[in-house]
Amino acid sequence: SKWQVWTEENVRSTFHKRFAGAHKGTFGTGLLLAGSDEMPGSALLAGKGALKSGIGKLTIGTSRFVSGILAGQLPEAMYKHDGLEAVGEGDVPKGIKACAIGPGLADAGKTDMALQHLMNTDLHLVIDAGALKKRTYPKRKGLVILTPHPGEFSRMTGVPASDIQKNRFQYALAYAQEQNAIVILKGRYTVLAFPDGSLIVNPTGNAGLAKGGTGDTLTGMLLAFVSSEKDVKPAVANAVYFHGASADLWEQTNAERGLLASDVSEHLPLVMKSFEQ
Amino acid sequence: SKWQVWTEENVRSTFHKRFAGAHKGTFGTGLLLAGSDEMPGSALLAGKGALKSGIGKLTIGTSRFVSGILAGQLPEAMYKHDGLEAVGEGDVPKGIKACAIGPGLADAGKTDMALQHLMNTDLHLVIDAGALKKRTYPKRKGLVILTPHPGEFSRMTGVPASDIQKNRFQYALAYAQEQNAIVILKGRYTVLAFPDGSLIVNPTGNAGLAKGGTGDTLTGMLLAFVSSEKDVKPAVANAVYFHGASADLWEQTNAERGLLASDVSEHLPLVMKSFEQ
Amino acid sequence: SKWQVWTEENVRSTFHKRFAGAHKGTFGTGLLLAGSDEMPGSALLAGKGALKSGIGKLTIGTSRFVSGILAGQLPEAMYKHDGLEAVGEGDVPKGIKACAIGPGLADAGKTDMALQHLMNTDLHLVIDAGALKKRTYPKRKGLVILTPHPGEFSRMTGVPASDIQKNRFQYALAYAQEQNAIVILKGRYTVLAFPDGSLIVNPTGNAGLAKGGTGDTLTGMLLAFVSSEKDVKPAVANAVYFHGASADLWEQTNAERGLLASDVSEHLPLVMKSFEQ
Amino acid sequence: SKWQVWTEENVRSTFHKRFAGAHKGTFGTGLLLAGSDEMPGSALLAGKGALKSGIGKLTIGTSRFVSGILAGQLPEAMYKHDGLEAVGEGDVPKGIKACAIGPGLADAGKTDMALQHLMNTDLHLVIDAGALKKRTYPKRKGLVILTPHPGEFSRMTGVPASDIQKNRFQYALAYAQEQNAIVILKGRYTVLAFPDGSLIVNPTGNAGLAKGGTGDTLTGMLLAFVSSEKDVKPAVANAVYFHGASADLWEQTNAERGLLASDVSEHLPLVMKSFEQ
Ligand SMILES: Nc1ncnc2c1ncn2[C@@H]1O[C@H](COP(=O)(O)O)[C@@H](O)[C@H]1O
Ligand SMILES: Nc1ncnc2c1ncn2[C@@H]1O[C@H](COP(=O)(O)O)[C@@H](O)[C@H]1O
Ligand SMILES: Nc1ncnc2c1ncn2[C@@H]1O[C@H](COP(=O)(O)O)[C@@H](O)[C@H]1O
Ligand SMILES: Nc1ncnc2c1ncn2[C@@H]1O[C@H](COP(=O)(O)O)[C@@H](O)[C@H]1O
Ligand SMILES: [Mg+2]
Ligand SMILES: [Mg+2]
Ligand SMILES: [Mg+2]
Ligand SMILES: [Mg+2]
Repeated sequence: SKWQVWTEENVRSTFHKRFAGAHKGTFGTGLLLAGSDEMPGSALLAGKGALKSGIGKLTIGTSRFVSGILAGQLPEAMYKHDGLEAVGEGDVPKGIKACAIGPGLADAGKTDMALQHLMNTDLHLVIDAGALKKRTYPKRKGLVILTPHPGEFSRMTGVPASDIQKNRFQYALAYAQEQNAIVILKGRYTVLAFPDGSLIVNPTGNAGLAKGGTGDTLTGMLLAFVSSEKDVKPAVANAVYFHGASADLWEQTNAERGLLASDVSEHLPLVMKSFEQ
Repeated sequence: SKWQVWTEENVRSTFHKRFAGAHKGTFGTGLLLAGSDEMPGSALLAGKGALKSGIGKLTIGTSRFVSGILAGQLPEAMYKHDGLEAVGEGDVPKGIKACAIGPGLADAGKTDMALQHLMNTDLHLVIDAGALKKRTYPKRKGLVILTPHPGEFSRMTGVPASDIQKNRFQYALAYAQEQNAIVILKGRYTVLAFPDGSLIVNPTGNAGLAKGGTGDTLTGMLLAFVSSEKDVKPAVANAVYFHGASADLWEQTNAERGLLASDVSEHLPLVMKSFEQ
Repeated sequence: SKWQVWTEENVRSTFHKRFAGAHKGTFGTGLLLAGSDEMPGSALLAGKGALKSGIGKLTIGTSRFVSGILAGQLPEAMYKHDGLEAVGEGDVPKGIKACAIGPGLADAGKTDMALQHLMNTDLHLVIDAGALKKRTYPKRKGLVILTPHPGEFSRMTGVPASDIQKNRFQYALAYAQEQNAIVILKGRYTVLAFPDGSLIVNPTGNAGLAKGGTGDTLTGMLLAFVSSEKDVKPAVANAVYFHGASADLWEQTNAERGLLASDVSEHLPLVMKSFEQ
Repeated sequence: SKWQVWTEENVRSTFHKRFAGAHKGTFGTGLLLAGSDEMPGSALLAGKGALKSGIGKLTIGTSRFVSGILAGQLPEAMYKHDGLEAVGEGDVPKGIKACAIGPGLADAGKTDMALQHLMNTDLHLVIDAGALKKRTYPKRKGLVILTPHPGEFSRMTGVPASDIQKNRFQYALAYAQEQNAIVILKGRYTVLAFPDGSLIVNPTGNAGLAKGGTGDTLTGMLLAFVSSEKDVKPAVANAVYFHGASADLWEQTNAERGLLASDVSEHLPLVMKSFEQ
């Protein structure tokens, strides 16, 4: 199958400045279902990733306890207390363009219920972490974007992680085509597999990203990019590229081991600036 | 009608350093009624906008839950728990010069009650977001400043937003004169319409501002400027100008899409410095 | 009476680097009784002022609600829930060298009770804001440092603020000698009056300090300086000097009106560095 | 006995860049049992020290109240509410490599219970502050690392602190060999004593570290280094070295007295960068 490394050139030719007359509605409202009482930070990291990547408006569905933790750090977001439960009862907010679900979610049952309702919408879906498992995805109008690391992909496929790592292209592509989903198989040289059979490999990032939380940041970034960009492939490829490029910029002046997921978001605007046409 | 673009020259000639012997009482105390349990951040953003713009003292009336979220980020403010309800019962704090109401308010009934009491005072009022609706403003001594975006202005006037956008000057001016209020119709090239028939157009700002929360920041800035400046027209025009100029400065080194409302406040002192006489 | 302006030279000759073999015990533990549910930030600002000024250890006595607000911003401090009440019942923590009381305190009765017990100790006391009122101070071993602005000094003395402002030296000195207390009468050209009849005038600071919260920062700084320095006069004079000097440094690149009390603390280490011998 | 000063050369030759193909599992998950309702910040400081030093994943076991304080500042961590109590009942989380216990712990009984269970595991243990007392450590597979300051070492040994200070090498070494533990006797020229009889002296750090909280930061750093490095001696020596070196870098532009423990963590990645091979 055809595959390509997503290069600086690819980014430059697909990443554009925004329309000067835009308003927040132009860039789509996203819903983030993330965070639980013992993993509240995942929602913060994903939310920050989304806001720093240019989402128009963001609603974070999480518990009141978690909202209280997040809101001082992410005042630009709105909160829906117990948003996961609400969606699980069919109460999907109106006016949104995409939903990311999974970072820091601990309750598999509630997560499943919410996903069932989300599947019946036309929303683009980014599915990560606690929302990833062995499951069949229906044909639907909105995108399904899955963002497993090898351990999660093993859980989804039943294939041992070490086998997956030996055949990252093949496994990712097979799953993408079977499930009609975009598979973003993370780790060094992240692989993006599309249902149309194309494969993209991301060259950016470093071992500083090997720390809890960096995946949550990526999930939020993907939510913003699919909410606000029209062309899907460059949108997701650029999100993954910028995530790694931000870590690479940071590493030029800092020991990679000290990188935090928050730093990745923090430097995104600076990194993206150098690619803006 | 006469209109003008508010230029760098206008700012320079109307924006002055403070009186060296001033104390905090010199600059007026402001009251901010904002924030609710699912939109706490609006109050934080507006409060930060006010403090960074030079308000003397700030009291934020919001729930205890929201106060707990804000106070660690805005230790310079005081809090009045359930301040909206208190004002709605006629308990308007003494010694204040202006009140901003609306950002992040979710309860229309309580907001209306508070506004009724505020209308009966001589306070300058900045009315935004959740406090904007179809309503008649009485003749009063204090200013009424309305800060709708086109969607909110549509709700206030019954005119479709697309029509408003085609005739921003006319609609803003008509409303300003009818209601004896200053209308700040936001969006690219924000229009400021005054009851005396004059119109100001703001040239600053960029599409990075097209994100949830940036309007809240402006509301806080306006609260500070009308509390601490004597000459109303330059006060509000400068507030709007600096809001956009801060976004423009930020955009010189960052991709605009990554701009957060907090960044706007953060850079205000630096931006204002270059205009200070 | 003899008075002097506290000059850069005075600071340089009295401000020293720390002893290389010091440990945290060397610099004294301070107790800060400050903050209430609607004025939590005062405690944060004072606490930050103390820690950035070199206190060895800091315990903040405040409500559990306020502690929860502060601790994420001031993790270096310890907290005593309901510390004001505890001291009011005679439970003064052991091992401390000085106590600051007043910023953000709302309950006059409890504050009085605590002060009564504190007066019976040998601790240095910094008394500010909510703890300042008409009162007689007993002869005692520890210092009594009072930090009123003209309005508070008027409340303490019964003299109208406008009269005080016309005779700042005389009023401050008379009170200092009557009450055997150090009076720091704040505002432009802050006056420090000592019981021995000497007067110091501070030349630093600017109108950016004319905003809620800056006095709280100074209170914390004074707590640190009297806890860790032996020579009292230079200790308090340097604290006041650095407070203003930090505002002056900040103002070189920022419009003064945008200064927040937090910024004052933030830049203290940089400012103090240039005076360290 | 043989002792050596840990030099810049030692650091350079033992501190390496990470393996490019690493994932978060490569660097080990750490458990931090720290923080109590009146000393919540200790857990924050230790957690930040661990994350900035390159731990793969971090779980902080602390109360729900403390978790709520920490999570907005340390979103990269996971939380286990009442983790100390859980471990005390034998519920030690699976999949972890090391545990640090002590900073900000107030309940000696619960701490002891937890330690008893931890002793029966193969985990590396870093024991500090509230978890340090007179105690006998069993022979075990995992490391025992004790990090007392002289006052704590006095409590552990019954020897007066002033005597300890006169014979730091001897007392540290005797205890290390008796108890088969690594003793890190803190203070200027921190001494590291190993059960094999070797002694390391750390040359970095300054009196700015003489402030509450800096020890907590070190504890977190040690947790990260023993979780992610294979060679124990350089791991702990480098952690202590970087802790002081960060303070030294900071002091080049700031008055040492203004140093906060948070600043130490903040600058770690920059400091470590200059030693990375
Ligand atoms: N060694 C590495 N090199 C490049 N990227 C990495 C590396 N380790 C982890 N990452 C990235 O960091 C993120 C980790 O996500 P997660 O495993 O969900 O926390 C993914 O985007 C990975 O691709
Ligand atoms: N494309 C744009 N160019 C300039 N300013 C904008 C643009 N979009 C939004 N803004 C400003 O951002 C703020 C948005 O406020 P709100 O709609 O209440 O969130 C207003 O001050 C708008 O004028
Ligand atoms: N115009 C000014 N020039 C210099 N210092 C000022 C000025 N206004 C206020 N300050 C200082 O700011 C602080 C205000 O304290 P407070 O009134 O308690 O909030 C005091 O340290 C004052 O001396
Ligand atoms: N005067 C000093 N010079 C160098 N390091 C110091 C000094 N005072 C304290 N430290 C370090 O700061 C930390 C204090 O830890 P603790 O006593 O637990 O708060 C330890 O790492 C000490 O070695
Ligand atoms: Mg993940
Ligand atoms: Mg708005
Ligand atoms: Mg004051
Ligand atoms: Mg310690």
